[in-house]
Amino acid sequence: MTQPVRLADKLAAFSEHWQPKLIAELNGQHVKLAKLQGEFVWHAHEQEDELFLVLHGELVMEYRDRSVTLREGELLVVPRGVEHRPVAEREVHVLLFEPASTVNTGTAGGPRTVEDPERL
Amino acid sequence: MTQPVRLADKLAAFSEHWQPKLIAELNGQHVKLAKLQGEFVWHAHEQEDELFLVLHGELVMEYRDRSVTLREGELLVVPRGVEHRPVAEREVHVLLFEPASTVNTGTAGGPRTVEDPERL
Repeated sequence: MTQPVRLADKLAAFSEHWQPKLIAELNGQHVKLAKLQGEFVWHAHEQEDELFLVLHGELVMEYRDRSVTLREGELLVVPRGVEHRPVAEREVHVLLFEPASTVNTGTAGGPRTVEDPERL
Repeated sequence: MTQPVRLADKLAAFSEHWQPKLIAELNGQHVKLAKLQGEFVWHAHEQEDELFLVLHGELVMEYRDRSVTLREGELLVVPRGVEHRPVAEREVHVLLFEPASTVNTGTAGGPRTVEDPERL
């Protein structure tokens, strides 16, 4: 893949929340975009560290013992094994970097699981 | 690492060109920031695909047979083995996502090689 990917165009192509879209792959890693609003499920990833970069809005990452607020232009790495729950009062747009094996709900599973993210 | 990283703060912390700075690590991958201006050396990475995300400015990625212009909010994956040369007429700020083993000059080497990027 040697064509540029314009984040704004990809973001304009979907509106659903909590459904990460695949926009690039490299070295066994996925680059995804997601729109988040409301509270997600508590979960952890057994084998995968997960990077969140906020492109628009404000994301609160809750851990069991505290929470971290991420604003536009800020990134956070959630290490493997650490329980977390993303929460966004208003819609937030994020870019995710994570291994291709990463499932959005980690080991928690449930109805919000997206096993095979759509490629935009 | 569970503290947010603010890209603007990290970018404000250095001014030199072509010297990628390490700002996060996950899954054996590095997230780096770099300021580029002028022409880099032609090179390829034998084992590593390399992602460039333009945060500010305009980057031209030259390949041997064509070139691609990347603007703010656009990303490009340069596949392993593909010769490329980043060129920026004016200063451009980029975020790089690539395996920890990646050296900026790839297999070309030379005086602009940064073996062990500074961590910001």
